[in-house]
Amino acid sequence: MAPSTPRLVVPIDLTKKPWEQKFTLHNRWHPQIPAVAEVKVGELFRVEMSDWTGGVIKDDDSAVDVKSIDLSTVHYLSGPIRVVDEDGKLAKPGDLLVVEILNLGPLPGDEWGYTATFDRENGGGFLTDHFPCATKAIWYFEGIYAYSPHIPGVRFPGLTHPGIIGTAPSLELLNIWNERERELEETGLQNLKLCEVLHSRPLANLPTTRGCVLGKIEKGTPEWEKIAREAARTIPGRENGGNCDIKNLSRGSKIYLPVFVDGANFSTGDMHFSQGDGEVSFCGAIEMSGFLELKCDIIRGGMKEYLTPMGPTPLHVNPIFEIGPVEPRFSEWLVFEGISVDESGRQHYLDASVAYKRAVLNAIDYLSKFGYSKEQVYLLLSCCPCEGRISGIVDAPNTCATLAIPTAIFDQVAISL
Amino acid sequence: MAPSTPRLVVPIDLTKKPWEQKFTLHNRWHPQIPAVAEVKVGELFRVEMSDWTGGVIKDDDSAVDVKSIDLSTVHYLSGPIRVVDEDGKLAKPGDLLVVEILNLGPLPGDEWGYTATFDRENGGGFLTDHFPCATKAIWYFEGIYAYSPHIPGVRFPGLTHPGIIGTAPSLELLNIWNERERELEETGLQNLKLCEVLHSRPLANLPTTRGCVLGKIEKGTPEWEKIAREAARTIPGRENGGNCDIKNLSRGSKIYLPVFVDGANFSTGDMHFSQGDGEVSFCGAIEMSGFLELKCDIIRGGMKEYLTPMGPTPLHVNPIFEIGPVEPRFSEWLVFEGISVDESGRQHYLDASVAYKRAVLNAIDYLSKFGYSKEQVYLLLSCCPCEGRISGIVDAPNTCATLAIPTAIFDQVAISL
Amino acid sequence: MAPSTPRLVVPIDLTKKPWEQKFTLHNRWHPQIPAVAEVKVGELFRVEMSDWTGGVIKDDDSAVDVKSIDLSTVHYLSGPIRVVDEDGKLAKPGDLLVVEILNLGPLPGDEWGYTATFDRENGGGFLTDHFPCATKAIWYFEGIYAYSPHIPGVRFPGLTHPGIIGTAPSLELLNIWNERERELEETGLQNLKLCEVLHSRPLANLPTTRGCVLGKIEKGTPEWEKIAREAARTIPGRENGGNCDIKNLSRGSKIYLPVFVDGANFSTGDMHFSQGDGEVSFCGAIEMSGFLELKCDIIRGGMKEYLTPMGPTPLHVNPIFEIGPVEPRFSEWLVFEGISVDESGRQHYLDASVAYKRAVLNAIDYLSKFGYSKEQVYLLLSCCPCEGRISGIVDAPNTCATLAIPTAIFDQVAISL
Amino acid sequence: MAPSTPRLVVPIDLTKKPWEQKFTLHNRWHPQIPAVAEVKVGELFRVEMSDWTGGVIKDDDSAVDVKSIDLSTVHYLSGPIRVVDEDGKLAKPGDLLVVEILNLGPLPGDEWGYTATFDRENGGGFLTDHFPCATKAIWYFEGIYAYSPHIPGVRFPGLTHPGIIGTAPSLELLNIWNERERELEETGLQNLKLCEVLHSRPLANLPTTRGCVLGKIEKGTPEWEKIAREAARTIPGRENGGNCDIKNLSRGSKIYLPVFVDGANFSTGDMHFSQGDGEVSFCGAIEMSGFLELKCDIIRGGMKEYLTPMGPTPLHVNPIFEIGPVEPRFSEWLVFEGISVDESGRQHYLDASVAYKRAVLNAIDYLSKFGYSKEQVYLLLSCCPCEGRISGIVDAPNTCATLAIPTAIFDQVAISL
Repeated sequence: MAPSTPRLVVPIDLTKKPWEQKFTLHNRWHPQIPAVAEVKVGELFRVEMSDWTGGVIKDDDSAVDVKSIDLSTVHYLSGPIRVVDEDGKLAKPGDLLVVEILNLGPLPGDEWGYTATFDRENGGGFLTDHFPCATKAIWYFEGIYAYSPHIPGVRFPGLTHPGIIGTAPSLELLNIWNERERELEETGLQNLKLCEVLHSRPLANLPTTRGCVLGKIEKGTPEWEKIAREAARTIPGRENGGNCDIKNLSRGSKIYLPVFVDGANFSTGDMHFSQGDGEVSFCGAIEMSGFLELKCDIIRGGMKEYLTPMGPTPLHVNPIFEIGPVEPRFSEWLVFEGISVDESGRQHYLDASVAYKRAVLNAIDYLSKFGYSKEQVYLLLSCCPCEGRISGIVDAPNTCATLAIPTAIFDQVAISL
Repeated sequence: MAPSTPRLVVPIDLTKKPWEQKFTLHNRWHPQIPAVAEVKVGELFRVEMSDWTGGVIKDDDSAVDVKSIDLSTVHYLSGPIRVVDEDGKLAKPGDLLVVEILNLGPLPGDEWGYTATFDRENGGGFLTDHFPCATKAIWYFEGIYAYSPHIPGVRFPGLTHPGIIGTAPSLELLNIWNERERELEETGLQNLKLCEVLHSRPLANLPTTRGCVLGKIEKGTPEWEKIAREAARTIPGRENGGNCDIKNLSRGSKIYLPVFVDGANFSTGDMHFSQGDGEVSFCGAIEMSGFLELKCDIIRGGMKEYLTPMGPTPLHVNPIFEIGPVEPRFSEWLVFEGISVDESGRQHYLDASVAYKRAVLNAIDYLSKFGYSKEQVYLLLSCCPCEGRISGIVDAPNTCATLAIPTAIFDQVAISL
Repeated sequence: MAPSTPRLVVPIDLTKKPWEQKFTLHNRWHPQIPAVAEVKVGELFRVEMSDWTGGVIKDDDSAVDVKSIDLSTVHYLSGPIRVVDEDGKLAKPGDLLVVEILNLGPLPGDEWGYTATFDRENGGGFLTDHFPCATKAIWYFEGIYAYSPHIPGVRFPGLTHPGIIGTAPSLELLNIWNERERELEETGLQNLKLCEVLHSRPLANLPTTRGCVLGKIEKGTPEWEKIAREAARTIPGRENGGNCDIKNLSRGSKIYLPVFVDGANFSTGDMHFSQGDGEVSFCGAIEMSGFLELKCDIIRGGMKEYLTPMGPTPLHVNPIFEIGPVEPRFSEWLVFEGISVDESGRQHYLDASVAYKRAVLNAIDYLSKFGYSKEQVYLLLSCCPCEGRISGIVDAPNTCATLAIPTAIFDQVAISL
Repeated sequence: MAPSTPRLVVPIDLTKKPWEQKFTLHNRWHPQIPAVAEVKVGELFRVEMSDWTGGVIKDDDSAVDVKSIDLSTVHYLSGPIRVVDEDGKLAKPGDLLVVEILNLGPLPGDEWGYTATFDRENGGGFLTDHFPCATKAIWYFEGIYAYSPHIPGVRFPGLTHPGIIGTAPSLELLNIWNERERELEETGLQNLKLCEVLHSRPLANLPTTRGCVLGKIEKGTPEWEKIAREAARTIPGRENGGNCDIKNLSRGSKIYLPVFVDGANFSTGDMHFSQGDGEVSFCGAIEMSGFLELKCDIIRGGMKEYLTPMGPTPLHVNPIFEIGPVEPRFSEWLVFEGISVDESGRQHYLDASVAYKRAVLNAIDYLSKFGYSKEQVYLLLSCCPCEGRISGIVDAPNTCATLAIPTAIFDQVAISL
């Protein structure tokens, strides 16, 4: 076998539940979730993953599964994977873990995905005040392309990527997360301005033992209870990377992740066949199962050398990455603008979230003139390769945000003015 | 002369002040500022413009001019230009004005520009709490490229564009602007969360007679007084387009602007040789004088057909545009992430502005390891062709924003990890 | 199973010889080679293939296998595959067969390839007068990237494609081929000017029973003997497509192939991980085994509607194709020119082959200044994603051809002047 | 004035003839044509040029001017320009002259161009056997775009470039040129195979005093007579660069030209608003007057360091160049193939010229199905940004060449199959 056949370190059997897999998945961040595999720097290896819900969402025409999903169970991650150098020495806190994404795709035999909006009372989304009901679109893949029986007339190449890749936090970092998110939840209402109706979305997703799956750690044991009560939810991206939903993290990308525990113990999941910037509908990419072919490297002491703490502790850092060379090529883009004035006409101060919301709403209204329902366009803009930009963020009081849509994704030419 | 030689409809003489030009410039939005020229749909024409300050900032090594600038005088715009159809009939409220940018560039003989940060007490910028002092970098152009004696080791092709292009508002729209911005200024402090220190930046820029220049309307007359008291400042982008600072509005772009008054009466100014997404330092692009070669079209009734009001009145709309085919091509990008946790460690709720701020700060800290001062990098990220993206905006409580920098702008290769 | 899981219609077992496969491969073009599978338009299917030599070339450091290869045995093709419409009716002569390449890659477990130059006396290559000896470089794949222990310091993403895809010729077309190629071989010497030394390369590759493998048709039978004596070799591309070695025929491409026999009976093989324009070393791409995921359509009567005969019969046509959207993105290119003056200083008349030869030689000499042997560069330019252009072909007596090399394939930056 | 305003070193007055210009143009290559200007390395300067015919071709609907043109008078070049280093020392034979193209475009007030086919008896073209008559299309420019009243329904951005840029040859190099081209003309008929009918095109364009213009050297003097008899015609590209017609030599490109005489004495002309690879119709780009903004550098001893003689003397070299970053971006390409079988059905041996001819003919026939005459398509493919590739050049006996056309240049979508 050539040295370039990747070693499968985390297999997935799609006929089994997340807790029945050879290496039980996990859906929390915690330093004490044990590694399930070890890889050496330079080694080519393959990680398989279920879709983020562990198979709850089905390939059918009903959104009942989306409406009733128990969100305490997501996202199911593969790993953690421990990384050692050529001498077998573990990655250490303070190092940078370099993860190069060499290939990825859907799992063979499972070439489909879904995009959904959650019900306002169960998850919601960026525009939940406009689209309060659960909806779902199924996507089928034709190699690099996706098409949907629920959104006819569009077909586009995927910029496939893992929504989540991150290293295990140290206990100290975990405490920082839990503390700041708890404070937001407790004091957040007066802090909040995005849109009153968004209040029905949880401000933060704090640790809960409900739905918790912790890899090898047996449920119900005192160890499990302790970890489950402490472990961070996987919803937000944080200092360790995690659920960053960066659509350009595709083939050929290199990610520089800070290491907080011995071995780095990185996990990955939430594969997206394609996603638009913002992933606006929340369950918004084309969600699927998949595989990654990866290679790791360790930059010893790299955190201090390359990252600068952006907060009160040396742990307040963010990953860096490089984009790969094979993104789909589009030449014509239709662009919608938004400013930080909300739908009621109220002026907000340099608020990029409000501006982006308005740009997305403008795009939805425009595209719905071409035979689509607004719900269909909302799903489409969530998962197609559209670009969300912060164009101007200093011209008080209006941020200008833009949403650029490649017109080639549409069959009909008439989509342009 | 071939039909493709553009007719010069607004000339600029750089030896003269804005109010000495053949067609006096204007620095406010108001329906009663008279048009200075008329163009027919399909006609090729050329508009020249001063830099946004009308020549106040000089090509020298001192930032004194930036520190002491009177911001009540900006931006100096060329126009308004009235548009008629082939039968000589004016564009009408409810129409869409299509403006195609066919060519643009610096004014011959004036091939230089500047990027600056304002003093915290006089304008500020996105990171004014970190960079409170006025600074300035001069850029010289070598055809498509810019380089700066104040930021050595970088050189990049410009994605040149007008920072401002917009139609005249109707009185009704003007009133909406003034009302909502006044309300923000009056009630804004409790509404504000971006960063306490930003309070020193004005929340809004309300009408003021100070510094007001209104084209043909003679200063001091009752008409001037009335208009000057009502006319909207040009700082923020709004429903009419205006100061959107969209860096992709370059050669070959087409802008669809709503028409609010007879003739559309569009104005343009604030030419940028190059700008990064966000224009973070506020005086942040490579500011210059310049020319535009344009062609217009009118879509009769296009506002109703293509735009959807996003607020309480039919006027609450935003322009749409298409990107041109000649943007500079980069293949390697270094990307910095930010999440909505601020520098004090405080958690914000899905705040894209905070996330983008953190991404920019991360980039500044990283690049300052390669021999640049942080002030230099702040200026650079404000004007180089970097891309600011909203990557994930639904994963409560953290928005993830990214800033992607094309590494080819740097001479030194070592800029990568 | 989702409708988007491709059906495997031609499997390959890499432990077996071409004639031991479930569907015996074939290495000739002939209308009477029976189809091994049938696919319906719109159906997603998968075709596997061996490397072009059927496994003769090994993953080792010796070029002995290349030197001694029996070229009468190549290329081993998978198929023929018969295509029917939705009503089960066969594609008919005069139709166009549309083949869309939806995905492709190396066969799992066999992620390696090779580039070689043949010995001057056994195959040769474009520069065989300069490089008369057999050489070989092995390439290993890391997902989208290839690297070689024999050409250190380069690594590039593949623009993977099948070197051969073509429909079965009719007997009439086959006769045209055999006749014109025989005439060339018989009268060709006086017709030849490229380079005297090239005479040692065969002028044409005429039918031969030696090495012939004809799919299901049993060797030694009278049927086999007849077909083997008539069947066209697979070396040159012709009216049916075939060995066109078009490097852009990758993911997302659509090929419009003329149909000459009932069912179209198309075959494919000669998978290339990557190839430079011209495939100059002849065994010049990164040759490998692989798979294709395809979808077909039939345009009834399309030959007449879309193709124009370019010769004395309606059969003298060429395929058309469209390029897919996911080619690797490069921004810096180093370009070498050549004119139609050969290495002896002799002037040729508007000869693009001579000009391209000189451009390739210029590139080899230049790159050999950076630590590579000329043989290494010859192999590299044969398989890396370089572009070969006919720049000017009318400025008598010199054609100008160019070879553009993306500098990002090199580790060392110093490759530029 | 900022240091980045280019100094105008060669002005053109379009109301005057080539020999009436401030610096008389020249239309031959010879070491003794005196330099008209001197530039220093690093200095930004501007060179203006007439169209290649010096104004003979008019903006009208008749091809009479094309039919009757005296081709002994072309191409009119601006220069020569002498280059010195920072110490005022001349570039020397053996150096490399680096010319960076920083900006370029049509001359203000002269924004139009033409594409033409010459009469078979007076110039001809690549397909003169198919298109023997003189034709002409006028193009008007709208900034970056060109459109033609003679080829309705197409509009495309230009990849503008000088068709000719080259250094003065030494006497030794000049002799080599004259000798080898004379030999071709004398012995060429038996050497020729492209297409019998091409015989009516001159095999080479040898020195002639007719039509000769030699810059400052006064016509009729003995010096003029001597030089005129020796000086090389400008039609073919050669070792000094010259008429290479490389369409990618646009903004941001860098050319490395060998230096053969003191000062390098480079000349430039033949500006093309746009050209297709091959410039097939000979007068085939969108020909225009124009300006270049340039910067030079000298690499001392660079010829020996970077170029390798590809012939019997150290002078047998070719330039190298790097492509700039602002080429127009296209995403959809329709591609036509050709093989080295000519229109009579005759087989040629690996002849890229024949293969490319067939690819171009295939494209012409295809596009003529969409309402264009074949003459219109021939002109269009000569000047639109199509790419001509040598795809496979080793698969005896057929070279495969391809012509790729960006479909976005057409108004009508139906251009695809």
